[in-house]
Amino acid sequence: MKYPAVHYHNYLGLDALLSAQHPKSAEYGKPAHDEMLFITVHQTYELWFKQIIFELDSVLATFKKDSIPERELGVTSARLERIASILKMIINQIDVLETMTPMDFLDFRDMLYPASGFQSFQWRLIETKLGLRMGDRLAYNQAPFYKSLTEEQQKEMMNVLNSESLFDSVEKWLERTPFLQGENFNFWDSYKQAVNKMFQADIDVVKKNTRLTEEEKARDIAGLEATLKSFDALFSEDVYNQLRKEGQYRLSYKALHAAILIPLYRHQPILQTPFRIIRALLDIDETMTTWRYRHAMMALRMLGQKIGTGGSSGHKYLSEATTKHKIFGDFFNLTTFFIPSSQVPPLPESIAKRMNFSY
Amino acid sequence: MKYPAVHYHNYLGLDALLSAQHPKSAEYGKPAHDEMLFITVHQTYELWFKQIIFELDSVLATFKKDSIPERELGVTSARLERIASILKMIINQIDVLETMTPMDFLDFRDMLYPASGFQSFQWRLIETKLGLRMGDRLAYNQAPFYKSLTEEQQKEMMNVLNSESLFDSVEKWLERTPFLQGENFNFWDSYKQAVNKMFQADIDVVKKNTRLTEEEKARDIAGLEATLKSFDALFSEDVYNQLRKEGQYRLSYKALHAAILIPLYRHQPILQTPFRIIRALLDIDETMTTWRYRHAMMALRMLGQKIGTGGSSGHKYLSEATTKHKIFGDFFNLTTFFIPSSQVPPLPESIAKRMNFSY
Amino acid sequence: MKYPAVHYHNYLGLDALLSAQHPKSAEYGKPAHDEMLFITVHQTYELWFKQIIFELDSVLATFKKDSIPERELGVTSARLERIASILKMIINQIDVLETMTPMDFLDFRDMLYPASGFQSFQWRLIETKLGLRMGDRLAYNQAPFYKSLTEEQQKEMMNVLNSESLFDSVEKWLERTPFLQGENFNFWDSYKQAVNKMFQADIDVVKKNTRLTEEEKARDIAGLEATLKSFDALFSEDVYNQLRKEGQYRLSYKALHAAILIPLYRHQPILQTPFRIIRALLDIDETMTTWRYRHAMMALRMLGQKIGTGGSSGHKYLSEATTKHKIFGDFFNLTTFFIPSSQVPPLPESIAKRMNFSY
Amino acid sequence: MKYPAVHYHNYLGLDALLSAQHPKSAEYGKPAHDEMLFITVHQTYELWFKQIIFELDSVLATFKKDSIPERELGVTSARLERIASILKMIINQIDVLETMTPMDFLDFRDMLYPASGFQSFQWRLIETKLGLRMGDRLAYNQAPFYKSLTEEQQKEMMNVLNSESLFDSVEKWLERTPFLQGENFNFWDSYKQAVNKMFQADIDVVKKNTRLTEEEKARDIAGLEATLKSFDALFSEDVYNQLRKEGQYRLSYKALHAAILIPLYRHQPILQTPFRIIRALLDIDETMTTWRYRHAMMALRMLGQKIGTGGSSGHKYLSEATTKHKIFGDFFNLTTFFIPSSQVPPLPESIAKRMNFSY
Repeated sequence: MKYPAVHYHNYLGLDALLSAQHPKSAEYGKPAHDEMLFITVHQTYELWFKQIIFELDSVLATFKKDSIPERELGVTSARLERIASILKMIINQIDVLETMTPMDFLDFRDMLYPASGFQSFQWRLIETKLGLRMGDRLAYNQAPFYKSLTEEQQKEMMNVLNSESLFDSVEKWLERTPFLQGENFNFWDSYKQAVNKMFQADIDVVKKNTRLTEEEKARDIAGLEATLKSFDALFSEDVYNQLRKEGQYRLSYKALHAAILIPLYRHQPILQTPFRIIRALLDIDETMTTWRYRHAMMALRMLGQKIGTGGSSGHKYLSEATTKHKIFGDFFNLTTFFIPSSQVPPLPESIAKRMNFSY
Repeated sequence: MKYPAVHYHNYLGLDALLSAQHPKSAEYGKPAHDEMLFITVHQTYELWFKQIIFELDSVLATFKKDSIPERELGVTSARLERIASILKMIINQIDVLETMTPMDFLDFRDMLYPASGFQSFQWRLIETKLGLRMGDRLAYNQAPFYKSLTEEQQKEMMNVLNSESLFDSVEKWLERTPFLQGENFNFWDSYKQAVNKMFQADIDVVKKNTRLTEEEKARDIAGLEATLKSFDALFSEDVYNQLRKEGQYRLSYKALHAAILIPLYRHQPILQTPFRIIRALLDIDETMTTWRYRHAMMALRMLGQKIGTGGSSGHKYLSEATTKHKIFGDFFNLTTFFIPSSQVPPLPESIAKRMNFSY
Repeated sequence: MKYPAVHYHNYLGLDALLSAQHPKSAEYGKPAHDEMLFITVHQTYELWFKQIIFELDSVLATFKKDSIPERELGVTSARLERIASILKMIINQIDVLETMTPMDFLDFRDMLYPASGFQSFQWRLIETKLGLRMGDRLAYNQAPFYKSLTEEQQKEMMNVLNSESLFDSVEKWLERTPFLQGENFNFWDSYKQAVNKMFQADIDVVKKNTRLTEEEKARDIAGLEATLKSFDALFSEDVYNQLRKEGQYRLSYKALHAAILIPLYRHQPILQTPFRIIRALLDIDETMTTWRYRHAMMALRMLGQKIGTGGSSGHKYLSEATTKHKIFGDFFNLTTFFIPSSQVPPLPESIAKRMNFSY
Repeated sequence: MKYPAVHYHNYLGLDALLSAQHPKSAEYGKPAHDEMLFITVHQTYELWFKQIIFELDSVLATFKKDSIPERELGVTSARLERIASILKMIINQIDVLETMTPMDFLDFRDMLYPASGFQSFQWRLIETKLGLRMGDRLAYNQAPFYKSLTEEQQKEMMNVLNSESLFDSVEKWLERTPFLQGENFNFWDSYKQAVNKMFQADIDVVKKNTRLTEEEKARDIAGLEATLKSFDALFSEDVYNQLRKEGQYRLSYKALHAAILIPLYRHQPILQTPFRIIRALLDIDETMTTWRYRHAMMALRMLGQKIGTGGSSGHKYLSEATTKHKIFGDFFNLTTFFIPSSQVPPLPESIAKRMNFSY
């Protein structure tokens, strides 16, 4: 009533959309039936990539704020979860693509040379917006990837590379976490004490264990002490910064503290949404990794050891990229340093209160 | 080498594809974030519908032949299975769409009026190509659906309605099934005998059962005789044709015979692929039905009892269409008349041999 | 170290678990290969049902508290989401079960008579714990369902029927929602005004629309007034209670208010988790409904119009139960009464502040 | 009627099944809610593993025959496809398991030490029955895996290791493929000629290409010749056997021929089912690989760089096992040697006829 009438067909731009399929095999007079499936799978991927970028941009806009209103945090968390849910869904498209046999692919494969999924500008944009830096990419794929872009795309990519990524914004947001230090509470000190206490108790258990020989005791205690030693990465800023320099960690030392605090106290009302956000980032990273992996398997199946349509050995590249291109790897790695909830230092009343509503 | 170099971006027509998203809410200066998701979901649906139509057309081309070469049957079966696999995959997109809340939908819903998924020309085309006739559609939706098409679309729809559907071709193909009657074998007679024998044996078991009272015996026997009576629909051409006229069955009497023979002797080499084809048709029908059902649920969730964006009560319509729009319902219903493999009449050696390879 | 060594095999009770498959067909000397699949599918279902009940019990324990600490709400929401995620996953088991053909089923079907999925005590328990009352069940299935239970199960079922269901607890929790009425804010009055204002504005637009004839204007205005009238169900406690008595609504009038308030102001920090809980309940209800639907379709496919293994017409029953057995239907229906966010009355500063953290 | 009445509860052995969950955390008086989920996920896995073994055993029974009747081949293919479909379905259980956070896991993790999924006897049995040999397993995991079995399990495993695996039987079946050599047709010779002709034509195209410099021509021709050279692995029995000895291939030279013939002529009626079987084997291998990969990711997420519950670095092990434990890798690799259908040598009439039915 208030708005002009809309028709489904026009609203969705179906004329443009449904006339954008141009199989090369038909063009060359050698129609290969399965090329249409190949096109459809990749076109729907690209539509979903655009959607992911759209969600990501809105999340970035929120995260770039110097102070994020709590009421926007819920929306942000939902949008990150939506991205994860899109990624999970489109992974299943690989099952559909695999209804095409390698022999069917062979009938039009040469006609596409050297086009390749590696040239997907949007996928690279997603990786970059999330926080993958040029130097994080597998060495031999940096240049070809960049070179394959149009001038306009190169400019856009440069802009993105030069602006704050989601990783960067999340890091700053973590650094701003209140509660890391209060008047009568220093999280990091308490945590360090709890860790030491826990290991000391474990060592005592070993010492008092009458079923163990002295030799066994020595071995077990050495093991515990070695594990405790690994916490140095956490508790010594110098050690941590050294490891960070070597590429083992990426988060700043301050952000790291929050990345430990939030999971440990995740049930506190004020930390529930931040915790969901961290989980969603993990989900996205893990799902992108699975995506690369499944594509590597599919490439192997379709092409054998042959080089990919894009001239690179698709399978080998993808299976290496699988782990190397992880962005929020720190969130995976920090799990090592969590302690059981029974050992987590209790919060002082005053802090707990401030983490809660007071309506 | 042999072909001009191709770039991923151009090959996929990404310029056209990625510039076909035009949210109304942005146009009206009231950007509603989730409208983009709404567009993406529907656009990818339409791309997949085009793919399904493409597969369906190739299947129809084969099935319209007066005699289908065995070597094409395998391909046809694989393409029908692909359609089922696409349908299963896109049902999961509903989970992604449901990450949009009803309130978010409300922010742009009025702007789309009266656009509606009911106006999807391609979906209707799929239904029609499969064999849904104008008269099979829910009464109150026939006209609006047809009226909403452009003139060109109406012409195309008319053409499809007037040409052989997959149901029609499959029916003819079933009617041509060899083995229904050989020199020394009449499948239908053997089958009838087997059914009678089976029921007679069941009745005998009851009669001899000393644990039953005469009354109980009478009741059980009456039950068995009633079930046996239901086979009249099968064994009397007149009864069957009457039921067919009333809309309870759609397949011709002759095709019906093959639709029983194939599942019963599905392990015979020559019937393995025909059986797969019947299963794929069942899968497609069942999945389209689930699709309608899940959309009905989603519409209810998004709109409550409100009328759909297209002006019809989406939920009510869809949940009725769910069962009414089934096309290969006979294949579901005939299950009633199958008998356990131990009762299936054995094939004469000569027939069994002809159903096998003889290299 | 601290605990005795554990072995995977014993920990999981695999001896008991993997020796609990007893195909009848083997027992009777007529081994039917696919009976094992039939058993496995149903056994894994029952294990998952136990898991769902386990989660549900923990959720119920929290919800039965007179005042639920905010910090438990996050956990509760996550557990409800887990239940939805389990249900979604096990629906896919139907695809696996459907790799069994109706003919294969026929080879052992009679041996199971009258066992049937309808006798799943745990599934009924889930429905009942969620809030399905005896009277909500399809009439002709109430007695058989109850009669099929062992004495002990009947006692347990009675206990559950007589104690607070999740629906009951959620209703009470909604009734306790603060913010429905403050010193200077009455949500219900503001909402009523906003609705009236919105409709009045719509009517004005029609009146001023020079492109409409007087007749068209009258028709459009009548339409708007009719819709506005439907809000009486909301704004008149008497009308609502009458509809509630007739079974159209189930929530109390007070709980209803909260069920509208929470979605409208879902971005407020204190309402984010309650909103997730409502969504999770919707998801569970919708997924259980889809579950019943897909089982109905499968029953139809496996049995045709034959009566189910349990003696009832499985297909017909299930497809009716599909909608009738919905528990949180009110949450679906209320969607009708939501208004676009631009029309939602803004919260007074003082209220908004109390809905936020103040660390 | 004919069989004693059966009750769902007893039929499924639910008393045994539903009393087999014994959380350690409850036993030790420190109940950790999520341990139940952990148990359920693994118990349902084991039930599905038993089902897979059941299907596999029936497939093995058929494949061990010296001559497999065509009518059993269809069933076999369907059962292999069922295994693939089970594997795909249970991979999704990981999504459900990941609703448990690493912190929740930590609360009972130590109590399970050193139990671990690596101790799943049934999973190892599946791998072994498919054809994974002791020496194929990652070195440092051979002994611990075997040692962790009970004496009875070790005996069973030894039996399986010493009997024909599915790989072995499939290899023999491939070797028996008719049509590899007929009176007037030698597949291998024809194929070799076709390959040579194709490459020669490609080289000619380069030579005549006036747009290329002599240098470019030389480079392109060298490339083509190198690729052609790689076919030596195929066409020289000595080269192949050498590579086979080095572990690059596993199939015998004769089986290899059939593994090329079947995909190339897959549309011939008699090869349709064999082709489906090869695809199903690929699907199973690929899905098991994805399964290992997703478990590796999950282990990383749950444990960080910590050692797994079983004392080995779960993540690292699994991600290596991912590719190393592939069994039908040859089917993946041979893809390299397929040629486009337009180049495939046509079959002599007499052969084509024998590949078809002649009813």
